[in-house]
Amino acid sequence: MTSTATGAPTTPAGPGTAPTQAAAPVEIAALRDALLLARRGPRHGPNPRVGCVLLGPDGTVLGEGWHAGAGTPHAEVAALADAARRGAGTTGATAVVTLEPCNHTGRTGPCTEALLAAGVRRVVVAVPDPNPVAAGGADRLRKAGVDVLTGVLEDEGRTLLGTWLASVERGRPFVTLKIATTLDGRVAAADGTSRWITSDVARHHAHDLRAEVDAIAVGTGTVLTDDPALTARNAAGELHTDQPLRVVVGHRDVPADARLHGPGGELVHARTHDPAEVLRILGDREVRHLLVEGGPTLAAAFLRAGLVDEVHAYVAPVLLGAGPAAVADLGVTTIGDAVRLTTRSVLPLGPDVLVVATPELAHATPTPQPTQED
Amino acid sequence: MTSTATGAPTTPAGPGTAPTQAAAPVEIAALRDALLLARRGPRHGPNPRVGCVLLGPDGTVLGEGWHAGAGTPHAEVAALADAARRGAGTTGATAVVTLEPCNHTGRTGPCTEALLAAGVRRVVVAVPDPNPVAAGGADRLRKAGVDVLTGVLEDEGRTLLGTWLASVERGRPFVTLKIATTLDGRVAAADGTSRWITSDVARHHAHDLRAEVDAIAVGTGTVLTDDPALTARNAAGELHTDQPLRVVVGHRDVPADARLHGPGGELVHARTHDPAEVLRILGDREVRHLLVEGGPTLAAAFLRAGLVDEVHAYVAPVLLGAGPAAVADLGVTTIGDAVRLTTRSVLPLGPDVLVVATPELAHATPTPQPTQED
Ligand SMILES: NC(=O)c1ccc[n+]([C@@H]2O[C@H](COP(=O)([O-])OP(=O)(O)OC[C@H]3O[C@@H](n4cnc5c(N)ncnc54)[C@H](OP(=O)(O)O)[C@@H]3O)[C@@H](O)[C@H]2O)c1
Ligand SMILES: NC(=O)c1ccc[n+]([C@@H]2O[C@H](COP(=O)([O-])OP(=O)(O)OC[C@H]3O[C@@H](n4cnc5c(N)ncnc54)[C@H](OP(=O)(O)O)[C@@H]3O)[C@@H](O)[C@H]2O)c1
Repeated sequence: MTSTATGAPTTPAGPGTAPTQAAAPVEIAALRDALLLARRGPRHGPNPRVGCVLLGPDGTVLGEGWHAGAGTPHAEVAALADAARRGAGTTGATAVVTLEPCNHTGRTGPCTEALLAAGVRRVVVAVPDPNPVAAGGADRLRKAGVDVLTGVLEDEGRTLLGTWLASVERGRPFVTLKIATTLDGRVAAADGTSRWITSDVARHHAHDLRAEVDAIAVGTGTVLTDDPALTARNAAGELHTDQPLRVVVGHRDVPADARLHGPGGELVHARTHDPAEVLRILGDREVRHLLVEGGPTLAAAFLRAGLVDEVHAYVAPVLLGAGPAAVADLGVTTIGDAVRLTTRSVLPLGPDVLVVATPELAHATPTPQPTQED
Repeated sequence: MTSTATGAPTTPAGPGTAPTQAAAPVEIAALRDALLLARRGPRHGPNPRVGCVLLGPDGTVLGEGWHAGAGTPHAEVAALADAARRGAGTTGATAVVTLEPCNHTGRTGPCTEALLAAGVRRVVVAVPDPNPVAAGGADRLRKAGVDVLTGVLEDEGRTLLGTWLASVERGRPFVTLKIATTLDGRVAAADGTSRWITSDVARHHAHDLRAEVDAIAVGTGTVLTDDPALTARNAAGELHTDQPLRVVVGHRDVPADARLHGPGGELVHARTHDPAEVLRILGDREVRHLLVEGGPTLAAAFLRAGLVDEVHAYVAPVLLGAGPAAVADLGVTTIGDAVRLTTRSVLPLGPDVLVVATPELAHATPTPQPTQED
């Protein structure tokens, strides 16, 4: 998965074609630019962030593009349009792109055909497309005689794709479990009150995460106890324009006067106790990243099902001595069977600390499945 | 409490004496040396760490001394002996000392009398003596015509004294509560097993703390479940020469074959449920720093009694979903009554994190009481 600074061809040339050349310095530089361009795209949503730079045979930049979200042109098409706007001919050009060009007709036509029509002769790619529906772009291009080099700066490319990539590889939304606990592991006092355990600083940090995900889920217990709004707000308390789906899991009704019916993302009520079913419902709605915000029963259900990819634990310097623990029964009775996580980061946030950790086996069983990309 | 680098006289000269001069640069430098000398003393035990430097009228160093632990000379007396060894006359000398010289006859004679007998004319002090039995040294010296300046580099001096100072100010041992919990606040699994929740790195760190305290306490529940040895060991697992007292709290007997009867510090069984009574027993034994290592029942008892000065929470990236929580019932039923702590530090230790925090009111009610210092 690692590529050196000079680029490592991971796909040898097929029979009858000239051997694929390693990435030239000018191509590496263009790929770094493409990675930056990609970051202009939205941080979440059904589609990945992709950037593309078109180089002339002499290494001059002919056009640049990035994908600005579902329903807008893919990065390659945007870069070709940019070249056209600049009056630059693209025959014999090299397309440098952060993700393998797609080969399927979704809301837009396949990028492979657009590149071929434009006369592109070489394509340099960071990350091979993990998406079974969209994949095959490199093969299609090679069959048409284009020189394709993949796996250049692949680690940087994977970092850019973030949870989108993990979601596509797993064939389901990437799941972050958030808990906000006291030092003695309580998420509420004995009477159910939990506002507030963590500090302003930690709560603002958690709100920033809400703005990055596609959906937020809680159990009906939390709805009935806390009446949460599940909205993404900025520091001034104003709603972001783009709101995550609000998901309630469980059989009981959401009260008619619940804040969940107020301003915010669309409300999805999953009347099930099966986390896999919740992920199927959300996957069908193109959710790539789900934030599970509790309570303890729902958290335990996702953990038991092995459907938590990442835990964000905000730990506050507070002791309660009673009240519900962060996680309900996991079926663990002895220390040897504990759910052990790998710590990814420890971040002090005002008086609190955020521990980000991943279950040890979360990355062991990726299950690629068809997903719709466009 | 803060002093500037040039020294701030906090005790104006009395009537009939010349005004006390601010600390000279050579005196400040000597006080910094004295603070370093003091650190050669033992990190715990009944007596404070003290250093002393004797300066001639021209600023030359005549002698240096520090206190090496109970039963050995005080720093001032050691410095006078050093000057004698060097053949340096001390008439007209200035004694620069990290703690106000004692004025009482304990295992050694009062330092005030030794300084007067040596002809010392000026004394520069970092921290006034908080000990009601030993205090009065500055007054005694002033009455004898010595120029006394206190409060120079006082913050550094207080830091050096650490829990000794807090213990003397409170009139009881300083109490550190240690807990080792999962992210969901458990200190053991449902079957009582708790070896190990935290990593090697965290456990070694916790052992270093054991080597710094005078006593370690657990409840009988922990003795019966975990059979702990409560010894201070180095990284190789060998016992330190100096072992803390081992304290068991509760009515039940310690089994005859318990590891507590094996090599280690003296065993003290406090057959009570009253934390204040435990501290009285230990105070009588000159314990300045007690480490309470649990379990949840004993931790809660100390917290409810307001007798915890500092919490060391080692939090491991582990989830259990069941098992005893770190702290048993505190009588808190609603979030507004939670025990809120102030975070002092957050230290990642391998995969775990150590949060050091202090109860908000711990410093509000210091109760100076007589203690024996020698
Ligand atoms: N500090 C925090 O981070 C935080 C966050 C959230 C909540 N909380 C606290 O947590 C407490 C609520 O705890 P809770 O456990 O009742 O909340 P919950 O997990 O939000 O809701 C539990 C309910 O969800 C339904 N459910 C969904 N999936 C389930 C499954 N697999 N198995 C069983 N039931 C399932 C059940 O209700 P149905 O009968 O309707 O199916 C169940 O009673 C409140 O005190 C709240 O303040 C704290
Ligand atoms: N991970 C950790 O940091 C850690 C540390 C220690 C223990 N643990 C775990 O904690 C569990 C044991 O919990 P525990 O609560 O039984 O242990 P505990 O607090 O050590 O012992 C409780 C016992 O101490 C006595 N006691 C002393 N003061 C008391 C008071 N004020 N009120 C009531 N009782 C008092 C009582 O016994 P009498 O009837 O004898 O008076 C009581 O049953 C074990 O599973 C152990 O592994 C974990």
